[in-house]
Amino acid sequence: MRSKLKDPDFKDQHEATQACQLSARPSGFVYFVGAGPGDPGLLTLRAVECLAKADCVLADRLVPPETLKFAKPGAKIVQFQHHSNEVPADGSSVFRSREDFLSLMVTEAKQGKIVVRLKSGCPEIFAHQSEEQAILRDAGIPYQIIPGVTAGLAAAAYAGIPLTDSDCSSAVALVTGHEKSPKRGTHLDYELLAQFPGTLVFYMGVKTAPQWSQALIRGGRSANTPVTIVCRCSWPDQRIVRCQLSNVAETIVRNQVEAPAIIIVGEVAGQTLSPQSDPELE
Amino acid sequence: MRSKLKDPDFKDQHEATQACQLSARPSGFVYFVGAGPGDPGLLTLRAVECLAKADCVLADRLVPPETLKFAKPGAKIVQFQHHSNEVPADGSSVFRSREDFLSLMVTEAKQGKIVVRLKSGCPEIFAHQSEEQAILRDAGIPYQIIPGVTAGLAAAAYAGIPLTDSDCSSAVALVTGHEKSPKRGTHLDYELLAQFPGTLVFYMGVKTAPQWSQALIRGGRSANTPVTIVCRCSWPDQRIVRCQLSNVAETIVRNQVEAPAIIIVGEVAGQTLSPQSDPELE
Repeated sequence: MRSKLKDPDFKDQHEATQACQLSARPSGFVYFVGAGPGDPGLLTLRAVECLAKADCVLADRLVPPETLKFAKPGAKIVQFQHHSNEVPADGSSVFRSREDFLSLMVTEAKQGKIVVRLKSGCPEIFAHQSEEQAILRDAGIPYQIIPGVTAGLAAAAYAGIPLTDSDCSSAVALVTGHEKSPKRGTHLDYELLAQFPGTLVFYMGVKTAPQWSQALIRGGRSANTPVTIVCRCSWPDQRIVRCQLSNVAETIVRNQVEAPAIIIVGEVAGQTLSPQSDPELE
Repeated sequence: MRSKLKDPDFKDQHEATQACQLSARPSGFVYFVGAGPGDPGLLTLRAVECLAKADCVLADRLVPPETLKFAKPGAKIVQFQHHSNEVPADGSSVFRSREDFLSLMVTEAKQGKIVVRLKSGCPEIFAHQSEEQAILRDAGIPYQIIPGVTAGLAAAAYAGIPLTDSDCSSAVALVTGHEKSPKRGTHLDYELLAQFPGTLVFYMGVKTAPQWSQALIRGGRSANTPVTIVCRCSWPDQRIVRCQLSNVAETIVRNQVEAPAIIIVGEVAGQTLSPQSDPELE
């Protein structure tokens, strides 16, 4: 096995290993950067470094204004917001068409710009990464992926829940509650997923909770399985609600839980916390 | 639903939400901090902040010396290294007994010290977090968990692999290849895991690859399923090796792959990369 890496400097290694360098490398470059779930304190040093050198920052709609302040002065900042009633981050432009937003990524990079495509959480997890890097490959634009703290893991940390446990959970599944009709390969059968030997962490599962929770019970998960819902993880208005698998749907309605929320299902979600950390016990 | 959060300052929110504050709060405090997979650039801002104020840093053996340099001058730094042939990080003490190491965490906190328990990756994932926070609860010591970038997600990013894909992977499972005999609840049946509708990411799966890879095939996963192995993710000597499920065990032997390594199994692991990003194609 040949090591591709000679230089002991971490950062250069990172570039050398990851960068999708094409034979005729254009001067532009795109960094796909994970911004974490919201709290700017969960940005990585590498994310901050990329923001500081970017000419253009194209941010997901859930990236807070505090995070965008790490961009260099004068950088073009554009935030994607497909809901017309959303308030744009201060000083940023707003795009409502995903196609236009991604076209801008290509246009800016082709002009030789350093572009940061700033994604909520981690680019690898439920962030259309395949689609976006395919666009860059087709356009001949080099890119690199900077991983971030994904919301599912952050939610567990903020709720004090270890997602794995050598006694009761040797695996954790990050699952979408909002699946596009699959074109090929496997698709989500929540009843089958009930047999997964570990913790289930649902992303985008608020609206579909009645369906997946009942399917899990039909598939054999106990109706009493502990559930922890973390709403707007790491934001100032974060809320933590606890319930059981049998009543997750009604708990969501009663507490007016809205997206974004992470829903953790499994024995680990029932860990006893001390009184003052007080997630609401339903 | 009552919001527990009044103060708009993110950092204070974080403390207020997460801190396991006991009624008679002692002066010491423990931060469980995710250090990411190796590259100090993957530390979060919050991790750096905690390191800068800690009186004592208790680090996993795989935390590199570059990361420990973020500790404040004069802080006590102790690294856990259970293998006698390992070289300790510069300037750090070395503990070879896990019990002694965790006792020190309690002793230091009881003396009123700010302790950072610095873990490779993210504390929520395969990091004995349940056990360690139970020790603190029993000792009446408050703590907080700062999530980090887990190795499985970082490995995917460095290899250019999106772990989810709206066309072919609506879920991702983080799985241990090295399971303690479970005392209760579910346990890992790799043959059953074959039916998981998405990408499988193995932690600590190098030595057990012959077993789990064959079990996955027996359970119905195609022998041709693409596999990407990322060895020492984000370290200067990182290596990426690609193969198929049928030959993952022999690929590990032939390439002398050793722990730590992340093994990604699924259609996403076969994504075409451009030639210059060149993971070795087996």
